[in-house]
Amino acid sequence: MAPAPAAVTSAAVPIDGRPHVVIVGGGFGGVAAARALAKAPVRITLIDRTNHHLFQPLLYQVATAVLHPADISVPIRWLLRKQANVTVIMASVDTIDADHNTIALDGGTTTLAYDWLVLATGARHAYFGHPEWEHFAPGLKSLDDAIDMRQRFLLSFEAAERASAAAERDALLTFVIVGGGPTGVELAGMIPEVTKHALSGEFRRFDPAQARVLLLEGGPRVLPAFPEALSARAQRDLASLGVEVRTNCVVTAVDADGVIANGERIAAHTVFWGAGNQASPLGRQLGAPVDRAGRVQVQPDLTVPGHANVFVVGDMAATFTTDGAPVPGVAPAAVQMGTRAGRNIARALTGEPSEPFRYRNKGDLATIGRHRAVAVLAGRPLAGAFAWLTWLFVHLLYLAGGRNRVSVIVQWAWQYLTFQRGARLITGDTAHRLLRGRGTPGSPDARGQRAA
Amino acid sequence: MAPAPAAVTSAAVPIDGRPHVVIVGGGFGGVAAARALAKAPVRITLIDRTNHHLFQPLLYQVATAVLHPADISVPIRWLLRKQANVTVIMASVDTIDADHNTIALDGGTTTLAYDWLVLATGARHAYFGHPEWEHFAPGLKSLDDAIDMRQRFLLSFEAAERASAAAERDALLTFVIVGGGPTGVELAGMIPEVTKHALSGEFRRFDPAQARVLLLEGGPRVLPAFPEALSARAQRDLASLGVEVRTNCVVTAVDADGVIANGERIAAHTVFWGAGNQASPLGRQLGAPVDRAGRVQVQPDLTVPGHANVFVVGDMAATFTTDGAPVPGVAPAAVQMGTRAGRNIARALTGEPSEPFRYRNKGDLATIGRHRAVAVLAGRPLAGAFAWLTWLFVHLLYLAGGRNRVSVIVQWAWQYLTFQRGARLITGDTAHRLLRGRGTPGSPDARGQRAA
Repeated sequence: MAPAPAAVTSAAVPIDGRPHVVIVGGGFGGVAAARALAKAPVRITLIDRTNHHLFQPLLYQVATAVLHPADISVPIRWLLRKQANVTVIMASVDTIDADHNTIALDGGTTTLAYDWLVLATGARHAYFGHPEWEHFAPGLKSLDDAIDMRQRFLLSFEAAERASAAAERDALLTFVIVGGGPTGVELAGMIPEVTKHALSGEFRRFDPAQARVLLLEGGPRVLPAFPEALSARAQRDLASLGVEVRTNCVVTAVDADGVIANGERIAAHTVFWGAGNQASPLGRQLGAPVDRAGRVQVQPDLTVPGHANVFVVGDMAATFTTDGAPVPGVAPAAVQMGTRAGRNIARALTGEPSEPFRYRNKGDLATIGRHRAVAVLAGRPLAGAFAWLTWLFVHLLYLAGGRNRVSVIVQWAWQYLTFQRGARLITGDTAHRLLRGRGTPGSPDARGQRAA
Repeated sequence: MAPAPAAVTSAAVPIDGRPHVVIVGGGFGGVAAARALAKAPVRITLIDRTNHHLFQPLLYQVATAVLHPADISVPIRWLLRKQANVTVIMASVDTIDADHNTIALDGGTTTLAYDWLVLATGARHAYFGHPEWEHFAPGLKSLDDAIDMRQRFLLSFEAAERASAAAERDALLTFVIVGGGPTGVELAGMIPEVTKHALSGEFRRFDPAQARVLLLEGGPRVLPAFPEALSARAQRDLASLGVEVRTNCVVTAVDADGVIANGERIAAHTVFWGAGNQASPLGRQLGAPVDRAGRVQVQPDLTVPGHANVFVVGDMAATFTTDGAPVPGVAPAAVQMGTRAGRNIARALTGEPSEPFRYRNKGDLATIGRHRAVAVLAGRPLAGAFAWLTWLFVHLLYLAGGRNRVSVIVQWAWQYLTFQRGARLITGDTAHRLLRGRGTPGSPDARGQRAA
C-alpha cells in the first residue's frame, strides 16, 4: 500500500490494523455502502464535497420555492453518527490513482491511501456538446443548483414587475424547460401551480397566471421510460395545467434571449435544463471503459475491470438488469448498488466470493402538479390521484430524518390549505447582479455590483 | 414635482392623481408605514434590496443553525398583497435628491419621483474605524449575514475533523464573540447548546463539547441597557453554560488568527461581531445633522429638518423618549415610528397638523441558551424560565406569517425533544474556498477554486 503523506490519513482517520474503506460521495449509493459495512471489521472514510445527504427526488420542489433546502437534506455525519467505524470528511476528490490505491483531495494538497474504494459521486447534467448553454439553462442536481434555479425563477417575476416594455415582460414571464424526462415534467407541472395560486394577487403590473410554460422534448413523447399510455396521460395532465408540451422538438440554441427550437426563436428569460446526464468525471480516471454518458462499465459485482478493490455504484455506473436493459439512474438503484458493493467488501474480508448485482425494480413514479402522478408499480400502470398519494407516501417514507418528515408534512399541508408558498426566499450576492442585467437572470452581460 | 424619466415610474407604478409615497426599506419601520397608509388616498411604492421582510430578533438562531432562513422571513409583497395601493419593487436605492424630490435606483439607471418619502433602511454593524475587521468578524443584520455566519460556524467543525495539529484544532474550536449586547449574549448562549447537544457524537477526532466560547465586552457589564442585577444574572447564566465572559475587555486587533484583547492574543478561527451599529449611509445624503452612529436627528414628528415631506424611521433615526433618553434600536420602536410617519402623511393630506412621535417602551428581552432569559416588562425585572417563556410567546406572536409560526414551533419542539439541529446546511460556492484555506473561514489568503 502506498504511503499517505497526509493530514487526513494520519490525523482524521486513526490508523489501526483494520482495512481502510474509502467511500467518495454521500448520496444514496455512498451512504448505503457505508451502512452495509456497519458490522464489518473495517475503518471507513466517507468523503463528500458537501456536508449533506440530499433527497434528490424532491429537488424540483426547492427549485420552485415549495420546500426549504433543509427539508430535503440532512448532515451526512448526523445520518452516520451511530456507526462508529465511519469518519465523515468534507472535501473534494480530484484524482484517483487506482494503480497505487490512493486518491488526492483538495487540489492535490492531501493524499489518502485506501484498501477498498467505493465511488458514488453521481452525475451532472449534460448539454450535448454545448457546455456554454449551462450559463443560460441551469440543471438540477445539487442543492446549490436548486437554490440558483429558485433565485432565477423568483427574480423573473421581480424583474417583470419593474419592466416597462410588454415584450420584455412577456419574455420574463416565459419559462422554457428543455427535456421531457421526470425532472422536466415535474418542474413544468409545478410552475403553473405556483404562478396561479401562490403568487396570485401580489403583483400590480401583471397577473402571474399569465406566465407561459413550455416543455420541449426532443423525442416523440414525454417520460420515455414509462409506458406509452402513461406518457400520453402525463401530456394531457400537463396540458390541462396550461403547459405547452412540444415533442419531437429539437433545441439548437440557448442564449440570453431564450432558445431556438425546431428553427423557431422562443423569447424566454428563464430556461431550465432537464435533458441529459453525464457521469462524474472521476470515473474516467480509472482506465476502465465508459459509455457515452461517461458511466463506468463495471463488472457484474460492481468492481472496475482490472481493479478488484474499486467499486463504482449509482449514477456513475453502467449496469444492466437480468433482461439486459440498462438499470435506470434512480435512487433505489443507487441504494441497491451501494449495499451490494458494501456487502461484497464484507464478503471478501471473510474469504467469500463476491455476488453479482441484481436490480430489483420497485417501480417508477413521476408527479404532475398538485395532485396528479403517473406510476408503474409491480408492473402495473397507475395514474391520477391514487398514483399521487402513492408518490406522497413513498417520498415521505424514504426521506431521511424524522424532523424533515414532520417539516415537509407541515409545508405541504400548509400549501394545500392556503395555496401560499413559504419558501420564496431570494438570498445571495448574485441576486442584484441578475436583477440589474435588464432583469435577465443568467445574462452574460449582466453587470454592476451589489450596493453596500 | 420633478419629472421621472424612468422605467419604474412610468411602468411599474401606474400614475394617477394620487400623491406618490415612496418607502425605502421593507423591515419593521417600512412595512408599518405602508400599513398606516392603507386607507389613505395615495399610491405607495415600497422598495427593498431583498424580496423578504425579516424578523431580525431571531437571526442569531439562523446563524447557529437552529432555524431555517425561511422561518424568519416572508416575501414583502406577500405581506402587503391585500393592500392595493402598494407596489413592491426589488431594487437598491443609491442616491436621494431631497431638493428635487427624486431618488435614483440601481446605479443611477432609474430615477423615481416622490411626493412623500419614508426612509427605513436600518443599520449595519460598525467596526469603530476598522472596516477591515469585517472580513474576519462578520456581523448579523441580514439573512445573508446569518447564512454566512452559519457557514463559518459549521465549517469550523468540518475543518477541525480534518486538522492534524492540536493547536490548529483548538483554534478551530474557539469561538470569539465581540460585544456583550443582546446579539452577542444570544449568540454566545446558543453555541454551547449546539456543541454540547446537537453535534454530540458526530465527530471522531474531538468532542464538540470541548469548543470554547468567549464573549468579550468593552464595558463593565453585559447587556448594558438592562438593570445591573439582570446583567449579573445573564453573566452567571452564560458562565453556567461554559461561556467565558470577559468585561472591560477591549479588542485592538482582529485578523485571520483571532483577536488581541486587552493585549492578549486569543487564537480563534471564528470571530463574530456584535459590538456596534452604523445607520444606513442613505441618511447622510439628506443634508441634515446626523449623530456619531450616522443616525439622522429628526424633528419630533420624524421629518428631516428642512424637508417636511421626508421621514426617517427605525434604526436610521435618532429619537428620544419623553425623558430625553435615546429610543433604543429595537423592533417595537421601528414599528411605532413607521406607523407615526404613515399617520403624519395621512394627516397632512387632510390638512391636519402632524403629531410628535412618542415611544411606548414595551419592555426588553434577551435570551440565554435554551431556557433562560432576562427581561424588563412593565418596568419589572424578570429572569429564568418564566422570562424565557415570555420571550418565546412574544416572538411567536410577532413573527409574521402563520406558516412560519407553525414551522418555528415544529423546529423548536423537535429540537427540545431530540437535541438535534436540523438546519445544519452548508451551501454556496464559497464553502470550499473557506474550507481549503487551512480550514480558516475568512482567511484572506484562502485560495483555490471549487472543483467542478
